[in-house]
Amino acid sequence: MHKGLPFETVPWRFRDRGTAAFSGATQVPVLIDGESVIPDSWRIAEYLDEHYPHRPALFDGEAGRQHARFVAHWIESVVHPLMPAMIALDVYEQLDDEDKAYYRASREKRYGTTLEAYVAGREHTRTVFAETLAPLRRVLSAQPFVCGAAPAFADYVVFGIFQWARSVSRFPVLLDGDPVATWRGRMLDLFGGYAARFPVCP
Amino acid sequence: MHKGLPFETVPWRFRDRGTAAFSGATQVPVLIDGESVIPDSWRIAEYLDEHYPHRPALFDGEAGRQHARFVAHWIESVVHPLMPAMIALDVYEQLDDEDKAYYRASREKRYGTTLEAYVAGREHTRTVFAETLAPLRRVLSAQPFVCGAAPAFADYVVFGIFQWARSVSRFPVLLDGDPVATWRGRMLDLFGGYAARFPVCP
Repeated sequence: MHKGLPFETVPWRFRDRGTAAFSGATQVPVLIDGESVIPDSWRIAEYLDEHYPHRPALFDGEAGRQHARFVAHWIESVVHPLMPAMIALDVYEQLDDEDKAYYRASREKRYGTTLEAYVAGREHTRTVFAETLAPLRRVLSAQPFVCGAAPAFADYVVFGIFQWARSVSRFPVLLDGDPVATWRGRMLDLFGGYAARFPVCP
Repeated sequence: MHKGLPFETVPWRFRDRGTAAFSGATQVPVLIDGESVIPDSWRIAEYLDEHYPHRPALFDGEAGRQHARFVAHWIESVVHPLMPAMIALDVYEQLDDEDKAYYRASREKRYGTTLEAYVAGREHTRTVFAETLAPLRRVLSAQPFVCGAAPAFADYVVFGIFQWARSVSRFPVLLDGDPVATWRGRMLDLFGGYAARFPVCP
């Protein structure tokens, strides 16, 4: 959407590893652009800026890349790991029976407990999550987007975890009044409300 | 040093609030450049880039400013608050009697306990500190400086807390082998080892 390029999306299930595997990737996302197959959201963003330089940039030069990289590492290392402790059981409930069996077995092995026990303290996890978001909150208390006056890749990196949560869970991972929630609303409004059109989970 | 400009430093004690107060600041640092008096490290960096544009930049454009801002908020909100629980008693021991009395009273009120009790669990705090540094460690595992191939303001923002710790305490706040410690060594080597010449505390 940021690039203003036309695209189609392909629905994907946990057991559809073969669908992505031809790209050499074991995880989504994967971009297919003509003959090019690019896995990994970071490499996709670099590919898009390189091949569509006259469209709005995802990275504002080398400094923009460094900014996005720090934010991405922060999300991956300390923010993202808290999310399953709030929504893992809700993810499970969205799946069909075949994926349910795979998901429960793989996640319960990873978490070392049942899905039910893993999310039992999620109100407390939300408090830790809110504290962890402190640097983001400070940024967003002073400017509309992570990248400043307009969104760029660092905004999408952060937004991704909230859109994921929103699409699989009704649990409010942010409390009203949090500047991070205000920013999330701003992100949902972008591009004519594109992200907001994905239904919240039933 | 980054700008290659000549400068003098002024020693400062806790009770010397009057020395900085004429600038309108209640805290150091304060830059005095001819007629200009600029408090606050962020404003000092912006002033230097604005007034000495032909010297090496502290911010690589607007994206560099956004990068440094996020890193600074991250340091201030989640990293810096862990430092006193490792070194507050060592700071105290560096002071003369008059500052000691001020420091102990103000910090024990802030921390809600004695300085001795506040640092009693500092080996544990160091473990939490190391976990908190995860995003920085990921960045520095792949490139020499926070800002990429060369240091800029975000590097100095992070380095500041380590130079502070080093100048008042012998407690190793980082363990050997940590990529963050390797980067710290690289920072100490900059400008002919300028920062390394400040003696570690006795």
